[in-house]
Amino acid sequence: MTEEDHEPAAGTHAGQVNMADVARRAGVSIATVSRALRGLPGVSPRTRSRVLSTVEELDYVVSPAASSLRGATRRVAVVLPRLDSWFASTMLATIESTLRQADLDVLVYQVGTEEKRTHFFRDLPTRRKVDAVVLVTLPIGGEEEARLDLMGVQVVIAGTRLRDFPSVSVDDVAIGYGAVRHLVDLGHRRIGMIRTFDTDGAQWASELNRLTGYLNAVAAHDLPDDPALVATVPYGIDAGAEGMRQLLALPEPPTAVFCYSDDIAVAAMTALSQRGLRVPEDISVIGVDGHALGELFRLTTIDQHVTDQARTASTMVLDLLAGHSLADSRVTLPTHLVERGSTGPPAPSRTREQRAGRTRSAQ
Amino acid sequence: MTEEDHEPAAGTHAGQVNMADVARRAGVSIATVSRALRGLPGVSPRTRSRVLSTVEELDYVVSPAASSLRGATRRVAVVLPRLDSWFASTMLATIESTLRQADLDVLVYQVGTEEKRTHFFRDLPTRRKVDAVVLVTLPIGGEEEARLDLMGVQVVIAGTRLRDFPSVSVDDVAIGYGAVRHLVDLGHRRIGMIRTFDTDGAQWASELNRLTGYLNAVAAHDLPDDPALVATVPYGIDAGAEGMRQLLALPEPPTAVFCYSDDIAVAAMTALSQRGLRVPEDISVIGVDGHALGELFRLTTIDQHVTDQARTASTMVLDLLAGHSLADSRVTLPTHLVERGSTGPPAPSRTREQRAGRTRSAQ
Repeated sequence: MTEEDHEPAAGTHAGQVNMADVARRAGVSIATVSRALRGLPGVSPRTRSRVLSTVEELDYVVSPAASSLRGATRRVAVVLPRLDSWFASTMLATIESTLRQADLDVLVYQVGTEEKRTHFFRDLPTRRKVDAVVLVTLPIGGEEEARLDLMGVQVVIAGTRLRDFPSVSVDDVAIGYGAVRHLVDLGHRRIGMIRTFDTDGAQWASELNRLTGYLNAVAAHDLPDDPALVATVPYGIDAGAEGMRQLLALPEPPTAVFCYSDDIAVAAMTALSQRGLRVPEDISVIGVDGHALGELFRLTTIDQHVTDQARTASTMVLDLLAGHSLADSRVTLPTHLVERGSTGPPAPSRTREQRAGRTRSAQ
Repeated sequence: MTEEDHEPAAGTHAGQVNMADVARRAGVSIATVSRALRGLPGVSPRTRSRVLSTVEELDYVVSPAASSLRGATRRVAVVLPRLDSWFASTMLATIESTLRQADLDVLVYQVGTEEKRTHFFRDLPTRRKVDAVVLVTLPIGGEEEARLDLMGVQVVIAGTRLRDFPSVSVDDVAIGYGAVRHLVDLGHRRIGMIRTFDTDGAQWASELNRLTGYLNAVAAHDLPDDPALVATVPYGIDAGAEGMRQLLALPEPPTAVFCYSDDIAVAAMTALSQRGLRVPEDISVIGVDGHALGELFRLTTIDQHVTDQARTASTMVLDLLAGHSLADSRVTLPTHLVERGSTGPPAPSRTREQRAGRTRSAQ
């Protein structure tokens, strides 16, 4: 990889001076130049001052700030792991509508695999296609993170957080905790969770954080801490059904299950219904999302207000392109418990039967 | 509206000659110039020859053909009514993946309302943002249709047909007919349909065609032709449930229901389940799509192979941008009945009860 690969498209501006020239002259890294110019933390006042005077000295036209201010491309890239999920398509639909009102065009990139992510982060800087990038729940590796500083475009993170980039997300630990707390309030003690993992090998921060919330709540309420109560299944349309089958196969199944998402919860309820089990009489189910299907299935959920997250991310993009600084603008939106029919108190009779069953098998 | 509004961005090319100049000199409309240059039917050989010689005379650089060949923007617009449906997001996901492999970027436009459609068709030509446009199941009015000729870009239609533009779609009349035929083969006679309509007032060709297929099959098999058996509900997450409630409220409900889409069918089955009715023992349900959720809900459906449609549309775009002519390339892909658990023979006992009920009420 040559040094040229690193350079944002600043070289296309008048003067032929690029960010690498500024870095060389100021005796700092390109990343430091980028951070200093964007007003981000992690650069000392002295270094920042040296970078700025070098910029002036070399008559360097700052990119992207300068070019963004004049609306260089009027295009914004929305980058997400996949489009075929309710979360992703809702996020994209709302971002597109909002940015469209500001007369911005939206480019879409699905970068589900590591190869595609690498490709995207490698190619974007050299092409100068967009003024801003919105990264939606994207798992980012170290090298990719470094590239973000060099992309020469504004960056907004949606659905998760990344370093000090402007971001909008929800508190996934609180989501996991709140879901379990709701089930505990109803009287449940034996509470399962259905987790899922990305089949392309990426780690989802939301997934790990919701698990943390679940485990924190289990510990805080002194619930049975049985690893078998956490079913982990590959992401897919059938994930919830498979997870529920695993939990039902336990010697002592849970009386309530917290599902990673509403998709998972709906599939889990389908598996219950196909076994002739009733929700919530036999088993309670709670999801996360606020999925449009939730109301249809009377699903209790933690609503993470995806359209609000998308609107906030869009507003951040518009602010950045208008030249406003959004340093340290990491917004955490509130989430809400939406109680519908899929959660209720554990059936006393069932609990007795289970106790009896356990006693018998323990004899 | 001035004449300049009509002009594709040809004027940005060397020579300052644009399509309007060619039209004026040749004594034909701009639309005729556009059609002649794209080799489309509806232009007489004599007119076509005059247009071509005028082009040569004026040294007009043909746009988009010439600019497309050199990959002017490397961008393709995917235009659809909405993103938040399984059909739309699957279509977009596949088109994006396919075009991305050819190093093309995808811009996305949701033009659900008539206002947004008008805006899109008015603005696109003057901006020269893309090399090609894929219109996905878009209801097109007369003025918009005329504008398509003036857009100065390649046009591909997906999920429906429009005039002689290259298109990929399925035979929606055959889909409606085939669904009813399947139910008739199982022994059903009293067959309902749940239709839906766009709340933004647009007419969906697929919707009208599937209804036509249903009505043709009803006539061909001499089935009860009761208008009340067709429930028409506004599009939305609850549409299928609402439609099913209407059908169940009939003095003599159907024993089987053909639903416009899998979304509708799943919601309809939810309504049945909440009434304590079993599928297919009490009532059979068939959808259309091949929705990912279908397998989970054991839904019998007519699979319209959306990813195949999307791949074909993408290939058409690549062919057009490579300079190949696709005149009269209107592809109709096959569809398939996927039999799962949601359809079965009508329950004899139930049919007897209904007959008894009908006899009683007729007395």
